[in-house]
Amino acid sequence: MNMFNVSEYMQTLGLQAKTASALMARADAATKNKALKALARRLREAGSTLADANAQDLARATAAGLSAPMVDRLKLTPKVIETVAQGCEQLAAMPDVIGEVIGMKQQPSGIRVGQMRVPIGVFGMIYESRPNVTIEAASLAIKSGNAAILRGGSEAIESNKALAQLVADSLSEAGLPAAAVQLVQTTDREAVGQLIAMPAFVDVIIPRGGKGLIERISREAKVPVIKHLDGNCHVYVDDTAELDMALRIVDNAKTQKYSPCNAAEGLLVAASIAETFLPEIGAIFAGKGVEMRCDPAAGRILREALHGSGRVVDAVESDWSEEYLAAVISIKVVEGVDEAITHINHYSSHHTDAIVTRDHMNAQRFLREVDSASVMVNASTRFADGFEFGLGAEIGISTDKFHARGPVGIEGLTSLKYVVLGQGEVRT
Amino acid sequence: MNMFNVSEYMQTLGLQAKTASALMARADAATKNKALKALARRLREAGSTLADANAQDLARATAAGLSAPMVDRLKLTPKVIETVAQGCEQLAAMPDVIGEVIGMKQQPSGIRVGQMRVPIGVFGMIYESRPNVTIEAASLAIKSGNAAILRGGSEAIESNKALAQLVADSLSEAGLPAAAVQLVQTTDREAVGQLIAMPAFVDVIIPRGGKGLIERISREAKVPVIKHLDGNCHVYVDDTAELDMALRIVDNAKTQKYSPCNAAEGLLVAASIAETFLPEIGAIFAGKGVEMRCDPAAGRILREALHGSGRVVDAVESDWSEEYLAAVISIKVVEGVDEAITHINHYSSHHTDAIVTRDHMNAQRFLREVDSASVMVNASTRFADGFEFGLGAEIGISTDKFHARGPVGIEGLTSLKYVVLGQGEVRT
Repeated sequence: MNMFNVSEYMQTLGLQAKTASALMARADAATKNKALKALARRLREAGSTLADANAQDLARATAAGLSAPMVDRLKLTPKVIETVAQGCEQLAAMPDVIGEVIGMKQQPSGIRVGQMRVPIGVFGMIYESRPNVTIEAASLAIKSGNAAILRGGSEAIESNKALAQLVADSLSEAGLPAAAVQLVQTTDREAVGQLIAMPAFVDVIIPRGGKGLIERISREAKVPVIKHLDGNCHVYVDDTAELDMALRIVDNAKTQKYSPCNAAEGLLVAASIAETFLPEIGAIFAGKGVEMRCDPAAGRILREALHGSGRVVDAVESDWSEEYLAAVISIKVVEGVDEAITHINHYSSHHTDAIVTRDHMNAQRFLREVDSASVMVNASTRFADGFEFGLGAEIGISTDKFHARGPVGIEGLTSLKYVVLGQGEVRT
Repeated sequence: MNMFNVSEYMQTLGLQAKTASALMARADAATKNKALKALARRLREAGSTLADANAQDLARATAAGLSAPMVDRLKLTPKVIETVAQGCEQLAAMPDVIGEVIGMKQQPSGIRVGQMRVPIGVFGMIYESRPNVTIEAASLAIKSGNAAILRGGSEAIESNKALAQLVADSLSEAGLPAAAVQLVQTTDREAVGQLIAMPAFVDVIIPRGGKGLIERISREAKVPVIKHLDGNCHVYVDDTAELDMALRIVDNAKTQKYSPCNAAEGLLVAASIAETFLPEIGAIFAGKGVEMRCDPAAGRILREALHGSGRVVDAVESDWSEEYLAAVISIKVVEGVDEAITHINHYSSHHTDAIVTRDHMNAQRFLREVDSASVMVNASTRFADGFEFGLGAEIGISTDKFHARGPVGIEGLTSLKYVVLGQGEVRT
């Protein structure tokens, strides 16, 4: 007989998180930074405890026949541990944004009104495989003064438990509540359903994983979700683009790494430079084995230029919307910036889109009118990242317009409340 | 046979709104202001068209036996029309926040990263009775560069249709798409269900009305909702409060008007000054017929002081959570600021709470630790309002922590997208 009640267990985690969140919200910066530094130290000192736990997960994954790349993502190598430890120290060194007051102005009534940055409260994070996410999420929770409930992948459960213990010990060492960061210790799938449906305890859910998982969570959640769906990113090469720069950016955006969500999946080229630009980028793509799915105009130019080297195929309608995450790119010749903007706003996933141009007016129009979380001029889409944007950390990338948009750092885990300072004013 | 298909009708409105929103997003400030000024002029010139439409609604409401206050709220008097016309002109005179770029900083890679304020896209607004809300919502949509779909109360349908025509004419006059602001022209209740479930066309829903309506919409909506539930607001009178100031603020917060959501529903008094403060505020409340629902300590003091004048009753547990919107207040004696904060965070609706104090440390703690959308020191809770806060306009008050919190003005109808300016940088 199974005596374990998932619903009761999750309610208990929720209540403990809520209680801890009030203490975290009023913790001072020095205390939070002490916990982060303790966590970095404990990670480096963990030695065999962590290694043994991780070995169990790896053995189970190998026995279950997981693919080599998936087993790789589970590994807590000394390098991975050192990276997350340094991440904790970097967070500790960052300024504390909690309590920041912005825009304080006197109103005609005499009251002074501004906004104070405060933690959201409790966030729930749902993620897969890589156990280092446990530390990234925990450290962001600590720095931002939130409590967190973490639900990692079942394949990493032993590693996550060992990491969560280091987090709890570090919180206690600094005098903060250990329940500020709790790991869901059961791999029962019902726990996810509970976590996303406790508005009394959880203020926001941050899922990281495949599109299917995120869509299901968004549909079923009873609290707001900071979500990241596709990354169908584009580079548009404008009439006046510098050829060398355009080649460098398009090559980097597509081929520097195929799997990230900020890699380019679509290339748009202005008709006036298609005949010069496409043969050159086509040669690069052909050399790297990138399949080119082309509209008729681009296909004609590329086929003539490449003489059968490289893989040039006809694009179908679904190619314009697809996030390949592979050595494939869709290519289309457009009349100019107008058609590029229209195409992107129609097919893009509103993640990241870039223009390469020397034309100031076109650059401005692209920035204003492309309706994406990150819009770029003369830079690779691969820069769409919390660290590259200077946020110091990243808990995810939002493709929503509501609350946080684009890379989400600490500010995305905060809200602004109004503060009013009076000297006895009343309403007349 | 009813040939009218609500679902198709709403999809059409949605598609038209989405199309119009792209044009609104890139409209320049002068054009949007021209539409606002045209709307103000057309409202003042409307004369009998508006009066006749409003008379139809009033006749129907009276015939249906609506209460006098409800019929009153329907009335488009010359004063009401002049007020909304002036509101349009004030919006036209305000700076345009669309396109504002904040925080542009160079990153180690060389790229410059900032955030640009852009419209959300399309908002749906669901409201009751008062037809002037139609103009308030329309003018905020125009100024913020959004498109809007407005669903007013069935009792105001003729007035709303006439007002919506003025809005459409003003948009056309300025060269903007008339579909930027559309009124749902059917009173079929099914239209609301459709409006809140079109994520492809509608980005956010703003309901205004009773708690039941808002809870139902939040539960059923497939898009984010900027919602405002209860206003269970508190004033805490601290040990060191100046007596005169405390009396003035508590009196104003409770009695200046009973119906607004920012009126105080609970009074907390520090034990050390309860014996001096409570008899004085009790006499004021008794004189104004305000019922006092007291904990034992407050009840004893007030009964002794008032000698049977005034209505002093024993509070029950539910009194601490209730939004009376009436001449009733709950009163509790607390030990000091700690107990006040704990009580407020437990029972308050997180709308607006105030402390009256001379103590700097207690003021700071109250501001930091009370988890409400607006927290105040030495000012009446009645100030929690978009105009009093200097937002220039208010589309609602949010009791959520997500996205907009507290009074919501134009910025609450915008989002920030990242803009990246490079000179050919690529990721290494």
